[in-house]
Amino acid sequence: MRQCALRNVLLGLLSAASFGAAAATPDVAAEIRALRSELSALKAQSQAATDWTSIANLQASYGYYVDKSRWDDAADLFAKDATLEIAGRGLFVGQDRIRTYLHALGDLAYGRLFNHMQLQPVIHVAADGRTARARWRTLMQVGQLGKEARWGEATYENAYVKDGGVWKIQKLHGFITFYVEFDQGWNKGAVALPQNLEGLAPDAPPTVKYGAFPDVFVPPYHYKNPVTGK
Amino acid sequence: MRQCALRNVLLGLLSAASFGAAAATPDVAAEIRALRSELSALKAQSQAATDWTSIANLQASYGYYVDKSRWDDAADLFAKDATLEIAGRGLFVGQDRIRTYLHALGDLAYGRLFNHMQLQPVIHVAADGRTARARWRTLMQVGQLGKEARWGEATYENAYVKDGGVWKIQKLHGFITFYVEFDQGWNKGAVALPQNLEGLAPDAPPTVKYGAFPDVFVPPYHYKNPVTGK
Amino acid sequence: MRQCALRNVLLGLLSAASFGAAAATPDVAAEIRALRSELSALKAQSQAATDWTSIANLQASYGYYVDKSRWDDAADLFAKDATLEIAGRGLFVGQDRIRTYLHALGDLAYGRLFNHMQLQPVIHVAADGRTARARWRTLMQVGQLGKEARWGEATYENAYVKDGGVWKIQKLHGFITFYVEFDQGWNKGAVALPQNLEGLAPDAPPTVKYGAFPDVFVPPYHYKNPVTGK
Repeated sequence: MRQCALRNVLLGLLSAASFGAAAATPDVAAEIRALRSELSALKAQSQAATDWTSIANLQASYGYYVDKSRWDDAADLFAKDATLEIAGRGLFVGQDRIRTYLHALGDLAYGRLFNHMQLQPVIHVAADGRTARARWRTLMQVGQLGKEARWGEATYENAYVKDGGVWKIQKLHGFITFYVEFDQGWNKGAVALPQNLEGLAPDAPPTVKYGAFPDVFVPPYHYKNPVTGK
Repeated sequence: MRQCALRNVLLGLLSAASFGAAAATPDVAAEIRALRSELSALKAQSQAATDWTSIANLQASYGYYVDKSRWDDAADLFAKDATLEIAGRGLFVGQDRIRTYLHALGDLAYGRLFNHMQLQPVIHVAADGRTARARWRTLMQVGQLGKEARWGEATYENAYVKDGGVWKIQKLHGFITFYVEFDQGWNKGAVALPQNLEGLAPDAPPTVKYGAFPDVFVPPYHYKNPVTGK
Repeated sequence: MRQCALRNVLLGLLSAASFGAAAATPDVAAEIRALRSELSALKAQSQAATDWTSIANLQASYGYYVDKSRWDDAADLFAKDATLEIAGRGLFVGQDRIRTYLHALGDLAYGRLFNHMQLQPVIHVAADGRTARARWRTLMQVGQLGKEARWGEATYENAYVKDGGVWKIQKLHGFITFYVEFDQGWNKGAVALPQNLEGLAPDAPPTVKYGAFPDVFVPPYHYKNPVTGK
């Protein structure tokens, strides 16, 4: 009976032993922890690259809407508490006011050209993946058949926020660097920096005072030098 | 006492075995399944970002070939059953016809300028990673020494397909938004929308009828508003 | 003998137990190896996408510095042993000489416009993630109030190196394709290719001899056709 009991114990033991892996466990756990840690770091890196492309898409989409006076589509890209500031026209606060500002830029109509190409992004996504900042520039072709035709350029310093998994524009700040008549180059003068929008008062004066070409102004950078960090 | 000692050894052994195996195994399997699932999701996300950059490279490469009349290189970027439609010149179907169309645009030659900058991409890769669509625009500098010099812009709505691991252009549709003489701005008129290519008949009439500037036209968007989804 | 038998059983059992661990391990170990291998491949892919965006940011940053004559910031983006060659001005070797070259382009000043938009990247990161090459183009608005105003374009073929985890410019080679007066289009002539920089001798003559518009020149491509591989 002792032998029998012993056999049963031994059989149970054998069964338990062959089922599992006493020796392997600590290593496996460590391996899995290491994999999880690497996966987590990789997720963050991959998400940042995805965010870069999403923000590039977002700002480019904004540009296409602006070109064609699709103001509600453009306004919908902004966060509720976003701000907008373009040229010398002052600060507009909140999506509703931004919508009003955009509609005041005028409707799509025969003979109107209002192209704002969105170019040269420098996009930085924050480490937590919740916010981002980007520098962009726009090359403008603006005018009206029978009236004026102008070339211009503005540099943007924008901020973005991820809201419910969707990137939105949190701040759009466009600094015009030059604005000239189509038939007069930058050697002959320039159109003055637009200071107001057909009587639409801003919510606050410009946060940055500057002059466009021929004045000298360096739009502030949201980033340090990428190599020196200074 | 021997029995007692033996029992202790056996119990200790049993305890070690059951602690090692039974407890760890299901967890390990679950951990590995979870890792595999996360890895799979991450792969798809990472692939989409890679595809965004590949398609950006592809369309930019197309532009550089077009600039320099490298028509065979440009045609090789299209899928066998691709379509091409530019300005008001109608639809060309299949890579062979696209190759014919492109060659009809003329050769690289002294005094010819034919720049087509590829700008402002909005690229969306399908969830299955097999197809993609993108909006782009081109700023054109076109002309011939002693003849004409023109500025122009076209908006593209393109489709892409991944074929044997390589992205190709499945559809290229360019809508000219303005086309003007270098010495006459968009306030003084515009070059009419090109309607045919030196006698080369298309395979089908234009799929979309529209007028370039000064007419009003919004090239269709392949995407919904990225924030509202409408 | 019973004791002996029992010892044998126990030894066998002990052996089975450790064999059991070894038996279970291969599956888990194989799974972990597979996960590790996939993770490693994914890391490389994800890193390449991240590198694409980093290099896009880097070159765009260079452009913004150039616009505003921030020459030290621009020079700091180059590797110590980098080279620079623009227009027909010859080769400058090393970061110090590049810094000298850049400063010789002149300071930010009232009435000066020096925009160099960085556009249309085709970026290829090497498989080992240590180097990269890219084709870019710049659309230039250059001039001085009361003097000249010019439009121009250059195509870049650049190389990059990852140094201490940071991407730097290893080679910048800009080929001017056209350069014209603001009030004279490419049908009426062009500004000659700049051949020297106000008396600053290069370290070596141009590595590539070419003429800008109206001459014909195709800047060499660092890449094969992305579809045919030829």
